[in-house]
Amino acid sequence: MRIRSFKSVVSKYKTVFFDAFGVLKNYKGLIPGIENTFTYLEEQGINYFILTNDASRSPLQLAEKYQKLGIPNITEDRIVSSGMLAKEYLTLKVKKGSVAFLGTEESAHYIETNDLKTVPISQLDIDNADDINALVFLDDEGFDWNHDINKVVNLLRMKNIPAIVANTDYAYPVAKHEVAIAVGSLADMVETIVGKQFIRFGKPDAQMFNFAYEHAINNGMKVGKDEILMVGDTLITDIIGGNKFGLDTVLVLTGNILPEQADLRIKTTGIIPTYICESAVIEKEE
Amino acid sequence: MRIRSFKSVVSKYKTVFFDAFGVLKNYKGLIPGIENTFTYLEEQGINYFILTNDASRSPLQLAEKYQKLGIPNITEDRIVSSGMLAKEYLTLKVKKGSVAFLGTEESAHYIETNDLKTVPISQLDIDNADDINALVFLDDEGFDWNHDINKVVNLLRMKNIPAIVANTDYAYPVAKHEVAIAVGSLADMVETIVGKQFIRFGKPDAQMFNFAYEHAINNGMKVGKDEILMVGDTLITDIIGGNKFGLDTVLVLTGNILPEQADLRIKTTGIIPTYICESAVIEKEE
Amino acid sequence: MRIRSFKSVVSKYKTVFFDAFGVLKNYKGLIPGIENTFTYLEEQGINYFILTNDASRSPLQLAEKYQKLGIPNITEDRIVSSGMLAKEYLTLKVKKGSVAFLGTEESAHYIETNDLKTVPISQLDIDNADDINALVFLDDEGFDWNHDINKVVNLLRMKNIPAIVANTDYAYPVAKHEVAIAVGSLADMVETIVGKQFIRFGKPDAQMFNFAYEHAINNGMKVGKDEILMVGDTLITDIIGGNKFGLDTVLVLTGNILPEQADLRIKTTGIIPTYICESAVIEKEE
Amino acid sequence: MRIRSFKSVVSKYKTVFFDAFGVLKNYKGLIPGIENTFTYLEEQGINYFILTNDASRSPLQLAEKYQKLGIPNITEDRIVSSGMLAKEYLTLKVKKGSVAFLGTEESAHYIETNDLKTVPISQLDIDNADDINALVFLDDEGFDWNHDINKVVNLLRMKNIPAIVANTDYAYPVAKHEVAIAVGSLADMVETIVGKQFIRFGKPDAQMFNFAYEHAINNGMKVGKDEILMVGDTLITDIIGGNKFGLDTVLVLTGNILPEQADLRIKTTGIIPTYICESAVIEKEE
Repeated sequence: MRIRSFKSVVSKYKTVFFDAFGVLKNYKGLIPGIENTFTYLEEQGINYFILTNDASRSPLQLAEKYQKLGIPNITEDRIVSSGMLAKEYLTLKVKKGSVAFLGTEESAHYIETNDLKTVPISQLDIDNADDINALVFLDDEGFDWNHDINKVVNLLRMKNIPAIVANTDYAYPVAKHEVAIAVGSLADMVETIVGKQFIRFGKPDAQMFNFAYEHAINNGMKVGKDEILMVGDTLITDIIGGNKFGLDTVLVLTGNILPEQADLRIKTTGIIPTYICESAVIEKEE
Repeated sequence: MRIRSFKSVVSKYKTVFFDAFGVLKNYKGLIPGIENTFTYLEEQGINYFILTNDASRSPLQLAEKYQKLGIPNITEDRIVSSGMLAKEYLTLKVKKGSVAFLGTEESAHYIETNDLKTVPISQLDIDNADDINALVFLDDEGFDWNHDINKVVNLLRMKNIPAIVANTDYAYPVAKHEVAIAVGSLADMVETIVGKQFIRFGKPDAQMFNFAYEHAINNGMKVGKDEILMVGDTLITDIIGGNKFGLDTVLVLTGNILPEQADLRIKTTGIIPTYICESAVIEKEE
Repeated sequence: MRIRSFKSVVSKYKTVFFDAFGVLKNYKGLIPGIENTFTYLEEQGINYFILTNDASRSPLQLAEKYQKLGIPNITEDRIVSSGMLAKEYLTLKVKKGSVAFLGTEESAHYIETNDLKTVPISQLDIDNADDINALVFLDDEGFDWNHDINKVVNLLRMKNIPAIVANTDYAYPVAKHEVAIAVGSLADMVETIVGKQFIRFGKPDAQMFNFAYEHAINNGMKVGKDEILMVGDTLITDIIGGNKFGLDTVLVLTGNILPEQADLRIKTTGIIPTYICESAVIEKEE
Repeated sequence: MRIRSFKSVVSKYKTVFFDAFGVLKNYKGLIPGIENTFTYLEEQGINYFILTNDASRSPLQLAEKYQKLGIPNITEDRIVSSGMLAKEYLTLKVKKGSVAFLGTEESAHYIETNDLKTVPISQLDIDNADDINALVFLDDEGFDWNHDINKVVNLLRMKNIPAIVANTDYAYPVAKHEVAIAVGSLADMVETIVGKQFIRFGKPDAQMFNFAYEHAINNGMKVGKDEILMVGDTLITDIIGGNKFGLDTVLVLTGNILPEQADLRIKTTGIIPTYICESAVIEKEE
């Protein structure tokens, strides 16, 4: 497929959904020049949102990180995370009592409500777990894997409660040649062992795109699916998810897929983006 | 879990989503008395929709079938089918040219537009398939499996086009102890052979529930997810799909799951309906 | 990895196991010159066997095909097929009564014994199937897919009998750019629908390699696993199966994998052959 | 199915293969009375072996445990473990250099040879791993899951070496209502993340049964597959593995499957043992 200029592509749409990792930033920080893209979008009156499979922080905290890195435009209301879907599920379906979780205290804060307390698995007394109404996989950090993952397996064998996976990713990059296992992998392992069906939130699932779509509409703009562009670096989450939801899609080559592999990967997976661009960067002088 | 009266449950909601097979009808025809349920819902001003993984007929044809069977209330606008999602996808993403299909001519009619022609796989010349922009699995009938499924495999090896599965079910009942293989199973087999990722529409996928939700809102009623009840006979499609979308759910025991199995199945799968009812029937004299 | 001369590699071993398709023949017939390889092996006193996931013919018929094509050395006792394992299973475990099958009459002949009759699915009366003690998936030809695969699903739902898959392949090549669906794919689809566990025979399963190993020993030669070389064109069957069984392995580039892809495919799958050779051909003048 | 007396069943065979957990012992220790079974077998001249998916100890150590518990007859040569297959693989295929491992030092000792060193993942310098020729998943204990499983993922991304799973079990019981995650589950998770194919040893794989079969023959007795009985408590490992290898099988009800569930589980899985017995215990006075 032909490589297009991102500016020429994005100018045709009213709203843009951006994946975060591999599109806006990588293990070193921001993709150089990406801040200009947001200046351009604001100038053109193009609306935008960040769609991220991240449940380790609240939207406010995620937004603050972008601001510190140098994109002041990304405010809390621009963030759509899988953690927000998990929170919506808990509010609608669990309502009250306690929710056990794997993750950091920080990640748990966000899903708490007046009626819903959170309990880290490490502090749970498994023989007195009557008030535990759900389990949430939030983050891969903040707990002892040996001890706490085994405890989760036994909790789910003893109590029939819904298990929610707030980040479906398998792994995430932490350095040039290094990845870390994400909580989605841990959840898959536990699901196979206990033989029950978990509830998963995150791209490529349609619920994530729909949640972003509702945000796009709530923010006052009327927008059709054919006026939205999804920008991502990963075929099996960003691009297939965007395609299925009915959006046009751009594959950028600043993350998961090297430029020389793009055509082969598109052919072997059958996941076809509407466009390919080198990056989502729009140069100032362009 | 305790068995509730369906009337007492349904009365608490503003909108009801019904699964079709195993809830409204079975291999013999309508579930006896189910027509009274719709009379009751109309009297009470409760809105309702039928959610079905069926792409073999248009919504109009599906509605006419219910009317013939004895539920005049089920009109075209009450139907939300996976076939409608497939049609939306084709309109938004494929737009023009031709779409090859597996299914009956009748099933293909519905997805045709002024700009989009349909071609049965049997009539396709695989060496002159330049104008074929997508493939759709519509129905398990209307073609020669041996010849045409092999042709589909080779078409997808030669051309990198999206493959859409308009009905994700594996099988459907045709008599008391007899099932038929559904097109979802055929699609899964082809996907494994060609190694590409297909696009699937149907319960338990969130897009199906969201499509119904949009219908509920478009029909003029303002309704929250907590005011909608999903009624189904199958844990792994209706109930988990409804739960994940944030709806309250009823498992009825007139289809897939026998009354004596319900508790065990809920425990082994970890899929927990909000309520269990014997059936969705509301008696006249009740 | 470095490309080696097949002659230099094979000379170090006492016994060779050959995959058939992609190594000895392709869709056009014999790989040109491959007959000289067998002349060389005989001269050097190197023993050899053909390991094939083929249950459509008896070893005698398979051998005759090679002889007609121009390799007179390949006699019946050189053939080790997945069909032979299926026959052994039926003899040991089913013993008597009738076995229903999907495949040609020819393929069924081979598994018949004095005590064990075979019945094509098409001729089976599913309501009078008391004497049916097993079901075997033999071949993708010889039956009507729509009608007979649906019949198999319902037979397995009604009767709890073992289901044997005598060829685990998903597809096989029939022309330069054309494949046909193999019976292994049909069996996988049925297994998913009925939710039961089938018994599968064929590479990469260890039982296939062990069966060949027993042949190598029975033929009078004492041979250690470290003296046997497995030659194949497919990483996920021939090479991983040979590796796991403890054999040295050669990947040849006359079938499944193009020369320019070999290194990438080895790296992405993690399946590492001991050697890579262009082909299994040994030139006369070499 | 009818429940048989184990004595009447076992008396018809020349050799018996026993699963360990759920058949000979459970979380509390030996199944009461099981020691008499071995006295009986010795009196009758029936040969026996223990087949276990355990790579955490050498056969000698495993045998000593049985002796301490009260079955002096179980000596080292009676043990066939998945760890022994892993050791055979390393000896035949890796030969020299170093093997990285997840597990206890004790588990690693057994796979060491004069030419093959072992290195715990915790002590590995991933940037100086040139002499590492394989990775083995041995045991779930002896390492920090968070740190070392992440290290394994990155090792396998950097180096293309075979990964061997010496115990395919998902979990094992540690108390009446408590299980622990086995190394097989950890290996599956890593395999999915890195996208490579691992080599697995353990029931139900045919290589395990074949290894035991070779032991049965080496020990001086000539024995046919139809003269061997496999005794197990788990349908999806012991029984389907034994069946596929051509052995008669007994399901005992002292482990995984409760007496009242046996018929349903056999029907839903399609895995049919030749016999069902309450336990493998033969009473003294019987």
